[in-house]
Amino acid sequence: MSKALVVLSGGQDSTTCLYWAINEFGHENVSSLSFDYGQRHKIELESAKKVAEIAAVVHEILPINTFSALGGNALTDDIKIEMEENRGHLPNTFVPGRNLIFLTFAAAYAYTHAIENLVIGVAQTDYSGYPDCREGTLNSLEQTLRLGMESSVTIHSPLMNLNKADIVELAVKLGAMDAMAYTHTCYNGQQPPCQKCQACLLRAKGFSEANIADPLIERCQFFRNLKA
Amino acid sequence: MSKALVVLSGGQDSTTCLYWAINEFGHENVSSLSFDYGQRHKIELESAKKVAEIAAVVHEILPINTFSALGGNALTDDIKIEMEENRGHLPNTFVPGRNLIFLTFAAAYAYTHAIENLVIGVAQTDYSGYPDCREGTLNSLEQTLRLGMESSVTIHSPLMNLNKADIVELAVKLGAMDAMAYTHTCYNGQQPPCQKCQACLLRAKGFSEANIADPLIERCQFFRNLKA
Repeated sequence: MSKALVVLSGGQDSTTCLYWAINEFGHENVSSLSFDYGQRHKIELESAKKVAEIAAVVHEILPINTFSALGGNALTDDIKIEMEENRGHLPNTFVPGRNLIFLTFAAAYAYTHAIENLVIGVAQTDYSGYPDCREGTLNSLEQTLRLGMESSVTIHSPLMNLNKADIVELAVKLGAMDAMAYTHTCYNGQQPPCQKCQACLLRAKGFSEANIADPLIERCQFFRNLKA
Repeated sequence: MSKALVVLSGGQDSTTCLYWAINEFGHENVSSLSFDYGQRHKIELESAKKVAEIAAVVHEILPINTFSALGGNALTDDIKIEMEENRGHLPNTFVPGRNLIFLTFAAAYAYTHAIENLVIGVAQTDYSGYPDCREGTLNSLEQTLRLGMESSVTIHSPLMNLNKADIVELAVKLGAMDAMAYTHTCYNGQQPPCQKCQACLLRAKGFSEANIADPLIERCQFFRNLKA
């Protein structure tokens, strides 16, 4: 059985992908990789670490200090996130080429660890204006990585054509709900999540449409009740 | 006239490319970018800075701390460079995906600065076993960057099919010899260059075949004579 590396952001989608990979490649063949790229909310990395711990897979964090040096976007800089999409413009959470960089570094890591499969939790269905989440982009990148590293790496994006409700249903089916309680989604970096930002609203919509309670919200409420 | 960004390593090839770009796009439209990626020899960055200064173009240095975190190769780690190529193996100076990463970050920089052209000094002729220097790889990457950033970026690699002697002749023709005296090539990071490592020998062969004196060697000898 070949080995797989999951790009783990600590969010709902990459966590679902981690369980997808365990199901697909076998638990002993899966490891996970996160990037400390200067994201404003370090809670994402803590979530990734916790999720990997619950799933009991190897987890490594690679630093990338280049995006914050490039500057100018709301995910790494202290810029207000644009809640509404500007028609004709990419949202200001767009970090140009972010997924290309993540997957290229993941492929370099995979190359040195004899791992043939990369798994990433992007979806073009709920695609928020990010061109590096599209199937065509990933197919082209896979070809580039194979040529550029003389490897036979394959990029898997099992959520590509699923909507948020589908992803919730898949996560339930794969037994990812324990880990899901520790994922992080909120653009404002809040825990309990703000439930007002675009990321929180999209997440809530998915759970609501799937008719499943979000274990993150339940966990936060549980602790809030304990305090009360 | 559209703008161009030259990936400047401080070596002979990227310096020639800088002058090629000035000739092609006009002096006022060219800027240059280097990467501080944990190379063992900081003299490369000093050379790049000096070359850009002589050419009088904007020069920026972006940090990349990821390669040294990935580890395991002779350009960033304290590993002896394999002078001879191992048949069937890539040389241990191979940093997996290095040019893919450089060009992707360069494209991100270009995206935020409305620059449409990237110029890189790779050549498949004297190709030392690096698959990310080949034309097919760069064509595939160009396509990936266009898709992933919704841009119309073009990657130029004007040295692609030139050998080292051709490159020397091109550099002379483009008036790059003043800058060439400050370039750095030596794998051992020495200045004056060691003239024993594979990189020094390849450089010397090119100048010799073009029947041109290497201005770097002349400059070093001049200062040595001054000291004597």
